[in-house]
Amino acid sequence: MTKNDDCLFCKIIDGKIPSTKVYEDEKMLVFKDIEPKAKVHLLAIAKDHFKLLSEMDGQQAELVKYMLTKIPQIAKENGCENGYRIVINQGADAGQTVFHLHLHILGGEQLGW
Amino acid sequence: MTKNDDCLFCKIIDGKIPSTKVYEDEKMLVFKDIEPKAKVHLLAIAKDHFKLLSEMDGQQAELVKYMLTKIPQIAKENGCENGYRIVINQGADAGQTVFHLHLHILGGEQLGW
Repeated sequence: MTKNDDCLFCKIIDGKIPSTKVYEDEKMLVFKDIEPKAKVHLLAIAKDHFKLLSEMDGQQAELVKYMLTKIPQIAKENGCENGYRIVINQGADAGQTVFHLHLHILGGEQLGW
Repeated sequence: MTKNDDCLFCKIIDGKIPSTKVYEDEKMLVFKDIEPKAKVHLLAIAKDHFKLLSEMDGQQAELVKYMLTKIPQIAKENGCENGYRIVINQGADAGQTVFHLHLHILGGEQLGW
């Protein structure tokens, strides 16, 4: 899997920057967002550095699929018993700030738009 | 693929309820949200009726993966040249109103949280 030495999320995966992990396996990591936008705000990342959905290869698309199959249980076990929202920001207009693909998981309360 | 006669989105797929389609192929349909929450607000749905990520089988997970590989180009061709946000609402707390899995695509302007 690709790593980028300058990437914040690759550093979190490598343990060079601390994070509050809630789930980890050989393919993905889920940790708490340090600037939560909801009562529960987790970030799910693949252990492979790629920036955008538009740039992913077949193996990376499989990783995203894998994450989407794992997230429901992870969300449920972390305070999202009544539902959750997945947000994927892509590019400038969406306010994407870290260019390592990540899925926001928001919940723990009634969410507005 | 499964259909549900009482499902709004299945009716849209079947053409029983009109929609403004921007993309269609044998697996998926993308149309304009009738209550847009951003300058561009599209809905991407699979042509298979299932409610939640937590309930999808392997074939349905493949469909979601397929949609995620197609969305970047569809977004770009529909006013999201500078990025876009994908939102997947799951359950009550997220305000999911139609229980046929759908991906919101938002863009066409700078989005806030």
